[in-house]
Order: sequence, then C-alpha cells, then structure tokens
Amino acid sequence: MGSVVALAGQVGGAKLADGLYRLRHDALTVVVNTGDDYQHLGLAFSPDIDTMLYSLAGIASSAAPWEPEDETHALHAMLKVLGGPDRPIHGDRALAAPLLRAHGLASERTLSQITADFCRHLGIKARVVPMSDDPVRTYVETDEGSVTFQEYFHDLACEPAVRGFHYAGAESARLPEALLDALHSADLEAIVICPANPYHAIRPILQVAGMKELLRKRRAPLVAVTPIVGGRALMGSAGKIMRELGREASARAVASEYLRLIDGFVLDSEDSALVESVRSLGMDVVALPTVMRTRDDRVALANEVLDFAASIRVRREAEVA
Amino acid sequence: MGSVVALAGQVGGAKLADGLYRLRHDALTVVVNTGDDYQHLGLAFSPDIDTMLYSLAGIASSAAPWEPEDETHALHAMLKVLGGPDRPIHGDRALAAPLLRAHGLASERTLSQITADFCRHLGIKARVVPMSDDPVRTYVETDEGSVTFQEYFHDLACEPAVRGFHYAGAESARLPEALLDALHSADLEAIVICPANPYHAIRPILQVAGMKELLRKRRAPLVAVTPIVGGRALMGSAGKIMRELGREASARAVASEYLRLIDGFVLDSEDSALVESVRSLGMDVVALPTVMRTRDDRVALANEVLDFAASIRVRREAEVA
Repeated sequence: MGSVVALAGQVGGAKLADGLYRLRHDALTVVVNTGDDYQHLGLAFSPDIDTMLYSLAGIASSAAPWEPEDETHALHAMLKVLGGPDRPIHGDRALAAPLLRAHGLASERTLSQITADFCRHLGIKARVVPMSDDPVRTYVETDEGSVTFQEYFHDLACEPAVRGFHYAGAESARLPEALLDALHSADLEAIVICPANPYHAIRPILQVAGMKELLRKRRAPLVAVTPIVGGRALMGSAGKIMRELGREASARAVASEYLRLIDGFVLDSEDSALVESVRSLGMDVVALPTVMRTRDDRVALANEVLDFAASIRVRREAEVA
Repeated sequence: MGSVVALAGQVGGAKLADGLYRLRHDALTVVVNTGDDYQHLGLAFSPDIDTMLYSLAGIASSAAPWEPEDETHALHAMLKVLGGPDRPIHGDRALAAPLLRAHGLASERTLSQITADFCRHLGIKARVVPMSDDPVRTYVETDEGSVTFQEYFHDLACEPAVRGFHYAGAESARLPEALLDALHSADLEAIVICPANPYHAIRPILQVAGMKELLRKRRAPLVAVTPIVGGRALMGSAGKIMRELGREASARAVASEYLRLIDGFVLDSEDSALVESVRSLGMDVVALPTVMRTRDDRVALANEVLDFAASIRVRREAEVA
C-alpha cells in the first residue's frame, strides 16, 4: 500500500476523504479548499477544513457535517438577546475551532500549523493541509455583482444567476509545504479529486499559483470523482451553477472541467451510459456507486477509486515497457 | 424621588445596584469597575459589567451571577478537545457578551456604547456606565511579583500575600460622560458605594483621573455599604487582603478606606458594636441587615440606604439653615 493525496472541499469531499483515511491512515494527505473561509464577529471560519476534521475524527453530525454531533445553540441564542448580528452562526461546539483559529492567526501561527494541531488533538493521523496559508477568496460573479461564496450561499440563498468565478489572491498564494512533500513521496499511488463543486471547492485549489503545474508533474495517476449524479448535484448548487454557466449539468461536463489534468474519471453507475462519451475526452473512465450514505459506502468507494488508479498505473507502465 | 448614582463591582455590588434599580428604574446610573477586564482568546471579558447586566436584567445565575442562568459548557468542552488553553472560560451563554464586545471594540466602538447597546437589548432602563472607556488594569503586588487581578484570583488562587495594588492607566483615563451628566443632575438624591472589595472593585473607580475631585463636588450625600460583616468578607478575598495589608478585617477598616470622601457608612447589624467607633472617624453611621440573599433583601437594603442618605441630607440642610 502506498500513499495517497486527495483534493477536497465540502461534505462530499470530506466523505470520500474519510473513506480513503480508513484505508490509508497516516499515508493520506488531504488538501482542503479554503476559498470559502471568512471572518465573522472576529472569528476565523474555515468551513471546509472543519467539515473535514469532524469527518475524519468521526465526530461530525450526520445531518450537518460542518458541526460536531450533538450540537447546541446557547451562545447564538444569547447573541440574539444582546442584539448581535442577524447572520446565523454555528452551534456552540462548532465555534471552538473558529475561535482558536482566530486566536492562532492573530498570534502569527499559520493556518497549516493550527490545522495540524487540531488534527493531533482530534487523533487524526492523516495530514489535513489547507490549500495555502495565504488567503484566497472565491468570488461568485452574478447578475447582481461580485459576492463572496458565503454571501451568495447564505445571504442571497444561491438565487442570482452565476456568470463566473474568480479566486482573489490565488495568483500570489504559496503552495503548502506538506503537499510538496506528499507529492514527492516515492510510494505515492494516487491523487484523488474528491466529489465536490468544481467551481468553488476544487478549482480554488487548482488556482493556487503553481498547483496545476505541480500536479502535471505527478508520479501517480490523478483521478476525479463526480459530484453530479444523473444530472443533479448530490448536495449544493453545482447543477444550477453549471446550467447558468451554459454547461449541461452532467458528469461529462464535470469531467471536461478537469480536461488535460486528470488521468481518470469516476462517474456514478446511474450515468454508465456516459462512459464512452467521457472516455472520448481522452481519459480513463469507470462507473461506480458514488453515493455515500454510510461509512461503509465511503470505504467501498475509496477502495474502488484506488483500484481504478492502480489499474491506470499498471496499464501505463505496461505501455511504457 | 430623585436620581441615584451607584459605584459598583463584583457580585455584592450588582446585588445592591439591582435593589436600587427596582426602586429608581431609569433614574439610576451605575458606574462599574473595569479594572479586572481582560482579553482571552481574543474575547473581551468585562466580568463586573456582565455580572451587573445579568443581575439588572434578572437573568443572572443565582449560583454564579457572572453567568446567565441555565448555563451550558459545550464550547469549552470542544475547546479542550481541540487543545485549547487550560484556563477555564465561561459557559456558552456568558461568551456572547465578550465576543460581541471584542468585535465592537475592534470596530472602534467604545465600551460605553457597547454596554449601552447591551442594556437596551436586555431591557435595562438604568444606565450602566464603565468607569472609563480607556483601559485601566488593576495589578496586585504580591510577594511573588505584580500580577493582574485575574492572575491573582484564577491562576494563583489568591495564595500569595498581598503587599499593595496599582491601577495602570488610571492616571490618564477619562471620566465617562454619562457619569458627569448623572452627577450634575438637579434631582440627584444619593451616591452609593455598593458593597464590594475596596481595593480591586471600588478603588479602581476612584482612581480614574478626576473621579475623587468630581465626587467631592457632589450635590448629594455619598454613602458606602460595607462588604465586611463580622470580620469576614461576604464573598471573595477582601478579608485576607486586608490582613495582609496590615489592616484589621473589619467594617471600620473599610470605612477608613473611604475617609474624607464619604458622608455616611452602612455597616451590618451584626457589627452594631462598631457604630460609635466608625462615627468617631467623622461620618454618619447606621447598622442595617446588609446580607442580600433574596431579591427582596436587595430592595429592602436599597431602600434603607436611600433613607439613610436622605436623613443625612435633611440634617445637613438643617445645619446650613
């Protein structure tokens, strides 16, 4: 068994990363989207990192994996009593990480160091790595102007039509050291793009300066897993956004977002009719059950994805020989 | 009925202020000690202000009046899981005010403005006024060096012998506007120093530049209520500190701390043997039941204290005439 690098964001990304973690333990490095990070009331929210941490630690709420299980909302209720801002904030438990993170950042610690500390205390053996220690912010360009993803999602309820995205700070953001180490590992067996919105979960990672060039020099197959099943996003607004961007909301359209980057694409068994069409884009394709309802589903999909990557590696080695 | 100004800190101060509030409603101005304010994890804690707010709003926990009732500790538990600092922090509800306060201060609002907002949202009609919007910090000089009161109380458990106090920033701190207004009110009937530790609850207020001079120009009697009953502090460490400072732990010693400032002193009925001795210091004295176990006790004591002040005023007016 070799080591694995995963790129992830959102709930779907955390689920597959959790499956990979159960198989590879400390040989897994997960690079997490931080493009949706935001400050609120002086706290430093990193929603995708926290979702990942709670998932890997096995303490995520099943209904709301961005919070620990058994969440309460006493602080928020008191904030309302005291006339605090209307914007809903997290539950009591989920506020601990943003509070410690804000304090750590104010004390000149990096997001990577803070995240590594959280992993250690949560007993997570995998490395969870922010896509950069430098701030990158995803902006959604809509008919009503350019807004952060948080504003688009929470304040505007995903309503304005989306015309594009930009990733402020990405061009000058530095790559995380831990990712460089992981990608140079001699036993690297696969790089996995987890199922997540390609525009505001995966592309922010790919836009960090030097990231795509680094991935193109990879020593192992890069495979992506679709977040779109049967023409709709499993969670979130990917389908709506794709249509507004003039693309069809399909696994094939997601695959084409990763064209000239990935070696293989995993679409859902429900979309097996698309296998040939996606293969014609110039990549290996496999149809698998990608919907992860249980932890066993996560591990099963992770296992199949790694087998798929292994099959690509074996065939390429045969071609070279 | 006229208006009343109270100087207060700690739990005893909040209790008597609450009694005065039930009698005088919006004609009460309470000046609160901020010498024990501190920052922790980026939050701005003002323990005496919050104790006052919860008490006046009628939502203070009876066991721990520095917290709202029905407190929970989910955030703190999660902070520990994530490796946060050992120092205990407040419960979930009690963290809302320090969080909003830190955010307000960072947004260039004053402590007075923030406190007034909290009062408005909590439905408190009295004015709760920080002793200054400028930072003043009470330091305890001990055998083991100079420490903040928070360090003395929490980290050192009040153990080192106390040699003195100093109030950093007091000499350049500005008086609160709302206090100037209240003291100049034509209908001012009394100024009350509430029962609280004279060294780290009341003296920090008196040390704000110009405060004593302002109080000496008062238009109404200034009366103080003892925090010491029968040779011991009702709460906290006042008795121990007084002995270490070479004073006896008695109501008389507290009265002498306010010498040449107050017109009258209220000691507890249990100490009625001390009445003549305190009177010989040159002030009016009355012995009253000062232990406030119920809200009725608070109102009863407040009523007696205002009657005492009225009796001083009537007699002085008679002397002048």
